Amino acid sequence: MITVVKIGGNVIDSPEGLEQFLIDFAALEGKKILVHGGGKIATRIGERLGLKTTMINGRRVTDKDTLNLVTMVYAGLVNKDVVARLLPLGCDAIGMCGADGGLIYSRRRSPEPVDFGEVGDVESVNLDTLRTLLDGDLTPVVCAITTDGLGHILNTNADSVASAMALGATPLDEVKLIYCFEKPGVLLDVENDDSVIPLINHDKFHELKEGGNVHQGMLPKLENALQAVDAGVKEVWIKSAASLAIPDAGTKICNDEL
Amino acid sequence: MITVVKIGGNVIDSPEGLEQFLIDFAALEGKKILVHGGGKIATRIGERLGLKTTMINGRRVTDKDTLNLVTMVYAGLVNKDVVARLLPLGCDAIGMCGADGGLIYSRRRSPEPVDFGEVGDVESVNLDTLRTLLDGDLTPVVCAITTDGLGHILNTNADSVASAMALGATPLDEVKLIYCFEKPGVLLDVENDDSVIPLINHDKFHELKEGGNVHQGMLPKLENALQAVDAGVKEVWIKSAASLAIPDAGTKICNDEL
Repeated sequence: MITVVKIGGNVIDSPEGLEQFLIDFAALEGKKILVHGGGKIATRIGERLGLKTTMINGRRVTDKDTLNLVTMVYAGLVNKDVVARLLPLGCDAIGMCGADGGLIYSRRRSPEPVDFGEVGDVESVNLDTLRTLLDGDLTPVVCAITTDGLGHILNTNADSVASAMALGATPLDEVKLIYCFEKPGVLLDVENDDSVIPLINHDKFHELKEGGNVHQGMLPKLENALQAVDAGVKEVWIKSAASLAIPDAGTKICNDEL
Repeated sequence: MITVVKIGGNVIDSPEGLEQFLIDFAALEGKKILVHGGGKIATRIGERLGLKTTMINGRRVTDKDTLNLVTMVYAGLVNKDVVARLLPLGCDAIGMCGADGGLIYSRRRSPEPVDFGEVGDVESVNLDTLRTLLDGDLTPVVCAITTDGLGHILNTNADSVASAMALGATPLDEVKLIYCFEKPGVLLDVENDDSVIPLINHDKFHELKEGGNVHQGMLPKLENALQAVDAGVKEVWIKSAASLAIPDAGTKICNDEL
């Protein structure tokens, strides 16, 4: 089993949360991959550098300066801090962005209808590089910076990088993909942390969608998770970073019968 | 043969020089490793961030803010740009700092007699990680940021990282170490670029040192090169980045008879 774990900025931004998460991640059995977002450090450093954030439809535009900023912060500062802290925990972490070893090639997003700038969508994962690293008992720690294969770096969505890594690893072994976020799982009632839905398959997803029971922002995440399952990932989990060490905590998305 | 090439800031800072260097590096036959310094980008970004540079005896002190800056710039911005540009040249580059895969462990330098801050001196190179990468036909592109193995990142001299990588690779194959710098080689007359000394061994070094013929700043470089040769590196070269593609250009330091 290969476990791919994705953490977002909320974990990176919490010193105690990150420390405990790294301990739990290092203790996971078997081969594993960590995908991380960036957190608010990039915004803070961007402000100190005097960069202006341009938003279109509520989404940040990655101009050249912003691309340099996120490359520095995600691939440099955050990635190397995480790696340096995993090593003494017994995890032979190797920090990477998608460019390293040609791990993840992406395609620059079309400037039509909206030009989001230096942004790429994942095209392929390099199985040779992934096999070399995992066979060498190294644990890739991957930030969401990729390359177009033409010499350019591109900013990429971290959830998509995680799902691409999971799918890319399926020829090597069974793969479990875990998305860690703020909540303990997919909630039936977003105000009630005790309302975690333990299992979601296609039938359950349609039932939840029809009934309007699930928070709107969660629907695309669940659709992506089900796509990953259909494409060969054995299980996708949505859970809190704090519950990483508890195997059954959170919501499992798979093709099992309910 | 494994070739370890070190470039300094002067190559990083020259857009045309870097482009031609990367073409020549990608074209080198056999297994290879690139070690790079940072250049003036770190200084420029540090100024924009309002960081103050503290110097003691003409050497920069790496305080915590400066460490974060060089980690961002060397391990993030510069390293990923170099990797992304090597890939389309047919070189399967994998960008790393010394923390990645536990490649280079260093020891924090004693604060006595002078406290240079978050600075480490190389202690060991991880042969397993190096073998995994080179056997996987990956080309490590290494910046001079290392770790103490206790969770901390440390700033490290890039020449020392290059020589440690070369020595670390000697159990795998014959190793050639090439230091690229501004001049065409070690010069008998520092004002005359045509006065390159083609070959330096221990005898020649002592002759040059006694005679006061070699520029003061070059003496420690030559001593380090001879130490590397004594420790098992087959050849050390000091030459210009522009002459990388010309095997016999520059100064060769080895144990051959003159």
